[in-house]
Amino acid sequence: MSVNGRIWGVGIGPGDPDLITLKALKVLEVADVVAYPTLEHGESMVRAIAAQYLNRNIEEIVISVPMVSDRYPAQKTYNQAAVSISNAVENGKSVAILCEGDPFFFGSFMYLYSRLSNQYKIQIIPGVTSISASSAELGLPIGARNDLIMVIPAPLDESVLRQKILETDVSIIIKVGSHLNKVKRVIISLGLIENAHYIERATMANQCIKGLSEIKDNHAPYFSIIIIRRSGEVLEL
Amino acid sequence: MSVNGRIWGVGIGPGDPDLITLKALKVLEVADVVAYPTLEHGESMVRAIAAQYLNRNIEEIVISVPMVSDRYPAQKTYNQAAVSISNAVENGKSVAILCEGDPFFFGSFMYLYSRLSNQYKIQIIPGVTSISASSAELGLPIGARNDLIMVIPAPLDESVLRQKILETDVSIIIKVGSHLNKVKRVIISLGLIENAHYIERATMANQCIKGLSEIKDNHAPYFSIIIIRRSGEVLEL
Repeated sequence: MSVNGRIWGVGIGPGDPDLITLKALKVLEVADVVAYPTLEHGESMVRAIAAQYLNRNIEEIVISVPMVSDRYPAQKTYNQAAVSISNAVENGKSVAILCEGDPFFFGSFMYLYSRLSNQYKIQIIPGVTSISASSAELGLPIGARNDLIMVIPAPLDESVLRQKILETDVSIIIKVGSHLNKVKRVIISLGLIENAHYIERATMANQCIKGLSEIKDNHAPYFSIIIIRRSGEVLEL
Repeated sequence: MSVNGRIWGVGIGPGDPDLITLKALKVLEVADVVAYPTLEHGESMVRAIAAQYLNRNIEEIVISVPMVSDRYPAQKTYNQAAVSISNAVENGKSVAILCEGDPFFFGSFMYLYSRLSNQYKIQIIPGVTSISASSAELGLPIGARNDLIMVIPAPLDESVLRQKILETDVSIIIKVGSHLNKVKRVIISLGLIENAHYIERATMANQCIKGLSEIKDNHAPYFSIIIIRRSGEVLEL
């Protein structure tokens, strides 16, 4: 296939390198350049997942995202990265932007997509999300029959979290991080602690599954998810 | 690996055979038996997706699901299938149960899981969902920042649909089928018709993308999804 000047947003899956799709692999085989985020002074998790599939001669655009709460430095970083990717494309190179999980599902890829998609057609290669990975590892079905499923970002206000959990059959709480205590408090107050399943870094080498009540820390890793099923109906089919 | 007597629920992805994961492929290479549903007198869509990956000598358990609205005949079919799978396992065979998309996300696999998981440990191989596939093909990001995402089955009552769409930023309406008119009526009454994106059979050969307002039929295929984003915020990062 002719790939000159193309851009892909490539879902690499949730962590286990075997959870990459054939389609993503085929893109990595033909791309001239890979672009990916890395934490400043840290390693890039998404590059680590994809490492064994990158050929020796591929060029790399490393997007070093500053760990600061102020948004401006991150915005500047993504502006610069968009320029680098744009330059590569204008030089006839094809660029695969690596994304953990699925590119269109809560990834930092969106910061590049918003800057590049008005100029270039970007093909998205969907991937296995951390939600599918988490439910598989927990042995916990997410949806059956007419279940309502809601994905709830933990940074939302306590009152919003409480209300949203009550409005759905299955709640999937993402971005737990420093909001762990708040989320736990809400779940306990709703009497749902026994229904809450916690998993860190699903399918990664350092995966960890715990009962939510066992966790004594105030802080969870960014890659942690809590799944709450209010009814036990899913297995009574 | 020793695979005697194992059972896997294998996510085959949303339709494009390239959207299978390496992990699913590795299971299909070692399994003795594949089991999959097929419509009575019809072909099996999930087998068609996986066909090129099945080796010549693999045994097949075909689960012929009757197309009737009464639940009893389908329950009987799944009971029989569970017995067949159980017999294969007791004879030391390993069985891969094929599932469209992701096994734990609204698949008929749940009917087998509920019958077999109390007797056997079933390993789930997560897959790319039709939701990720749809958003990729539509070029429509699903979630960014603190978006609330809700998966809403179309068979729910009109008043419930209306309320749920209003309680979330992004609504993903699944199982549209014969509920198309009802769903359309709700979306129009909420003034959201311009925000509603419709896709049939995402990533399959006969994929079809339309504006919801263009659809004149009363009935959509089972494999159709409507995605509604109430705010346009996702690209203003």
